[in-house]
Formats: sequence, structure tokens, C-alpha cells
Amino acid sequence: MPELRRDPLVGRWVVFSPERKQRPQDFHLQNGALQEPGAFTWGKEHLTPPEVYAIRKEGTEPNSPGWQVRVVPNRFPALRIEGDLMPEGDGLYDRINGIGAHEVIIETPHATEALEDQSVEAIANVLKSYRNRIIDLRRDSRFRSILIFKNVGPMAGASLRHAHSQLIALPVVPRMLQERLTSARAHYAAKERNLFEDILRAEHREGKRIVLENNSFAAFCPYASRFPFELCLLPKRQNPHYHHSSDAELELAADALKQLLQRLNKGLGKPDYNLILHTAPLQREATEEARLEADFRWHIEVLPRLSGIAGFEFGTGFFINSTLPEEAAQFLRAVKIQ
Amino acid sequence: MPELRRDPLVGRWVVFSPERKQRPQDFHLQNGALQEPGAFTWGKEHLTPPEVYAIRKEGTEPNSPGWQVRVVPNRFPALRIEGDLMPEGDGLYDRINGIGAHEVIIETPHATEALEDQSVEAIANVLKSYRNRIIDLRRDSRFRSILIFKNVGPMAGASLRHAHSQLIALPVVPRMLQERLTSARAHYAAKERNLFEDILRAEHREGKRIVLENNSFAAFCPYASRFPFELCLLPKRQNPHYHHSSDAELELAADALKQLLQRLNKGLGKPDYNLILHTAPLQREATEEARLEADFRWHIEVLPRLSGIAGFEFGTGFFINSTLPEEAAQFLRAVKIQ
Repeated sequence: MPELRRDPLVGRWVVFSPERKQRPQDFHLQNGALQEPGAFTWGKEHLTPPEVYAIRKEGTEPNSPGWQVRVVPNRFPALRIEGDLMPEGDGLYDRINGIGAHEVIIETPHATEALEDQSVEAIANVLKSYRNRIIDLRRDSRFRSILIFKNVGPMAGASLRHAHSQLIALPVVPRMLQERLTSARAHYAAKERNLFEDILRAEHREGKRIVLENNSFAAFCPYASRFPFELCLLPKRQNPHYHHSSDAELELAADALKQLLQRLNKGLGKPDYNLILHTAPLQREATEEARLEADFRWHIEVLPRLSGIAGFEFGTGFFINSTLPEEAAQFLRAVKIQ
Repeated sequence: MPELRRDPLVGRWVVFSPERKQRPQDFHLQNGALQEPGAFTWGKEHLTPPEVYAIRKEGTEPNSPGWQVRVVPNRFPALRIEGDLMPEGDGLYDRINGIGAHEVIIETPHATEALEDQSVEAIANVLKSYRNRIIDLRRDSRFRSILIFKNVGPMAGASLRHAHSQLIALPVVPRMLQERLTSARAHYAAKERNLFEDILRAEHREGKRIVLENNSFAAFCPYASRFPFELCLLPKRQNPHYHHSSDAELELAADALKQLLQRLNKGLGKPDYNLILHTAPLQREATEEARLEADFRWHIEVLPRLSGIAGFEFGTGFFINSTLPEEAAQFLRAVKIQ
């Protein structure tokens, strides 16, 4: 059974998932090689756990060919869906049993196709699948937050080549989300203005970090980017919850995302990257929910993994970046993708 | 000129060091290959900036052969030593000019020798060099904290094969240290007990996570280890400041460290790793200093880099670990190193 343990020195939770364990002697055999895609194409549906969601041709049966996007439970889940939450002390320490959902969003039935090489409509279907899985899982009162992310390439932690994202529903609010909530709340309390709206205005005014824009989204290299060519995709409409996005909005998000990833690929030679969707926590009381509506906004981060994480980053929690976001944005704007 | 920028969403500082910049087209040429050692052997002293410290044979001149440990400014520093601190607003954002020290501790004149393959006496000389550099740099009132770390192998962010550590003196207290200080202070306030002493007692009582011990140190796999086979080396004597360690203590630390790294190497096939020294911040007022004496203790982390950092870790600030520390400690205790 997986469990979450809390580090008493820094308050950080670690998910222990012994079912994903490699034997010690396997560790040094890892060489970043990616598993070839096999289980994620039409006709191989029996190789995964049964689907929990799919976008598929009318008239086709679940767990059979005909799908465009298919969501299945992770075969090696970091967390288990069954059971009640049981936080407990362990002497000096704290732990919770590892309750949660861990799903895989298979973005295409085509084994060699990257997300960004698909049509805007197909990418929008992936983004709509994210939304629909959140709408389903948020009914489970054990979950406090849902994280969706995508690891592309071995530098970004991917072990599988077939285009896919992952969803993890957690019984706690992770620190990266809590820090965002706290900053947004403090900003609103001090200024009665939305932090994300202020960032959008600052980026508009300066212009030099913006990579692209459409009617619903702006994409820019953040002021304090951790990584060279890091990107943030931010909706222009105030909305804390990704799952409250409309079809029309997700279609414009898909269009922006395709362009951003194509610019990275063309300009930097298909770098490995992580994509992370930050959306507001679930199960909030009405007063808290009203505050979130005022101060928090969902957004997507894209983190190209051109440089590693080393002792300085682990020691400080800070990052060293050799490339100013102004220069990164200028470079990405200039990449010709047509 | 380097600068520090603060991320308004999560309060994290990022060091921008354009002088370390690669051109965009260089990024995708990186393949984790390590630079061969050349500049760090006897007779090549002119290839580095002049030394700021060395342990060398009596009668030998600075910047000439005869040294065992040699400390030089980093040729590509992330921070600059010259100038006054100037925090300033940048519209919505915050930045500080990048004042700090960035030094390289060359651990041996022998190009192919790893730290752990040296004699205990030689390793103790490295640990004493850390101490002596802190004692020198703490006189500079601009510096609030000093981080010493070691990146070994490409997975751990090393770009150079020759055994070396790095020292960075910072004008701010990094978040990973601040979180430790806050946790230790809260624990002491609640219980009037030292958190590190409580951890040491808990680990003694349980025993199963301890890897080795001597008169002055205990080494264990922490309860909420982020990484498989992660290690913490903790002094038994209450002491917030690494630079207050005695020669005898550092000799016992060297002995423990050699054994720990040898166990990792033998058991896991020379994994890449980061080593991080956490020591109390500098320039504290007397009342604050008195509190540190009660609640904080210096310690060393060793982080084997057998698994990567991916979207889950970036999205949550949490980690997924497949190996329980109890099993990791049992495995490491059983490795035969003689």
C-alpha cells in the first residue's frame, strides 16, 4: 500500500509507492532509454486497465479501437484509489495512507505522433479530456487537488515514448499550489487586485517577454523563469478552475499550445519538457470558493529541460538560469514555424 | 552583471547569470558528456583564477604545485563578488543585483580520484577547507548564508569530472534553509526540545533507518526521503554552525562520509549524487544567534540521482519515491566495503 510521509525539516510530503519499486540492482541499469510505444494503439486496448473515459467515434465500444483520446488508470499507480484517508502519527513523524487517483491520458492512437504535431482540434480534445476527468473526480470528497502534467523525453522523467499526460488526484493540497494560493491571497489582500491580472498587465506593458497571444490567452517567459525558455500560458478571463473553461477557450488554448511547442521544437531541437497544469483546489467551503474566484487563476507551465537540477537548486530551493526571459521570448518569437 | 529575480507566484528567487549563457543553438548539443579534467592538477595552476585558500606542503608557493586541496573563484561565477547590494522594484516584480561569492574547492590534485577513494585524512582536509572558507567569508557583512555542495556525474548536474565541490555565498537566506529554520523554531517553541535531537532519538529507538554511527555522527536514510538511498549525516553534538566544528569532529565526519559513499558506490554501481551542507545563516543578532544555538543543527544531505525530477515533482513540490528508507538502510548496511 502506498503512503505519504511528511518531512519534519521542511514540511514536504513524499509519496512512497513500493509497487513501482525497482530492485536496487536495477537502478544502475537505467540509461534514460524510453520504452517503445506498444500498448497505446488501436487494437491493444486489452493491454491497459479498462478505460475510465474516451473520446471515440460514435458507435464504437469502450476498450475497442475507434478512440482519439483514451484515459486509463495507471498500471503502476503512485497512489491507490481504494480506501479511506487515515492520517496517523508515526512516533515523531506523520504519515497518511496513499489514497488518490493516478490516470494516464493517451493523447493519440498514433504511436509516433507528438502532441504538438496533431491538429488543433485533436489537441483541444486532449485539453477537454483533462477537463472532463477533473469534473468526474472532483465528486470524490477525499480529493483536495488534481494535478495534470506531461513528461516528454528522458530528461523530463518520461519512461514511455507514446504521447501521454498523467493525472494525479491528491488527498492534500501540494505545496507548489499552496504557495501560489498564498501569494495570490496576500496580493489581493494588500492591493485588492488579482495577482494574475497584474502580471498580465505588466507583461502587456513591457511586451518583451510575451511570445504569443490570442483572444483568450497570453503566453510569456516568466520574469523569474527557473529554466531557459520556460513558458507560462495564462487565460485572460479570471477563472480559478480549469474545469470551468469553455470549449471555445480550450480550442484557443490548444492553438496557443501547439504554436508554443512547435517554436520550442524548431528553435531548440525538440527539447525534453514538462508541462504542468495548475488549477484551484477542490472541496472548498463557499466563502473560500468566493475568495478563489477573486484571487486565483488557473495556468499552464511549460518547462524545457535543457539544464539539470543540481546541488545549488536542492540546497537552496532557488535556481540558476543562464538565459534572461526577455532574450528567450525574443528568440522564440523569431522562430519561423510555417 | 548577474541578478536575482523573485517569482511573484511562489516567492522563489532565481539567479540569472548571463555570463554562463550558452547560445540557444548550443542547448541541444548537450549530451551529458563531462569535461575531462585538466586545469585542476599540479602544474596547471595558471589555468584557474588565483587561489583564495589551499592546504599545501610547507614551503610551496601559492598557485604552484604542492597542494592537496585548493580553493579558487569559479571562472564562470553565478554571482559577482564586487559591489553593493541593491534591491529594487521592477514594476510589479522584485530584483537584487547578483552579489555573492562562487568558489570551487578542488578536492585532490589527482585527476581520476573520487572524494571517497581518498584517505580519511585527505577527506578531512576537504571538510576543513569548507570550514575555513566559511570562517573567511562570514566576515563579509553582505552575505546572509553560505551553501556548499557537490555535484557528481552528469545526472547530478556536474560538467566536470575532476573531484570538486562548490561554495556559494548569498545575500539572502535560501528557502530550503529558511524552511528548516522555521520548522526547528516551531518544534522548539512547541516542545522546548531540539528537533534534530528528537530525530536522532527517534532514529536510535527505531534503528531500522540508521546506516552507520560513530562517536560524533549518525547517518540514516530520512523518514521522508525524496530519493531512493538518500542519506543524512547529522552531528550528535548540538551545533548550528558547521564552522564551529572541531578538527576531531571533521575527521569523524570524513570517516563516516567515506564509508557512506563507498556503500553507495559498491551497492548501486557508482550512482551520480549531490551532496549538500546545510549550516545556519550568518549575520544574526545576538538574540537570534542564541535561539539558533538551541534549535538548529548543521547537517549534510547525500542525494543519489537514480531517478529523475519530473512533472509531478515540479507541479507539487512533493516527490515520488519507490524505495522505503527502512529498505534502503538495510541494503546499504549489508554492502561489504572491506
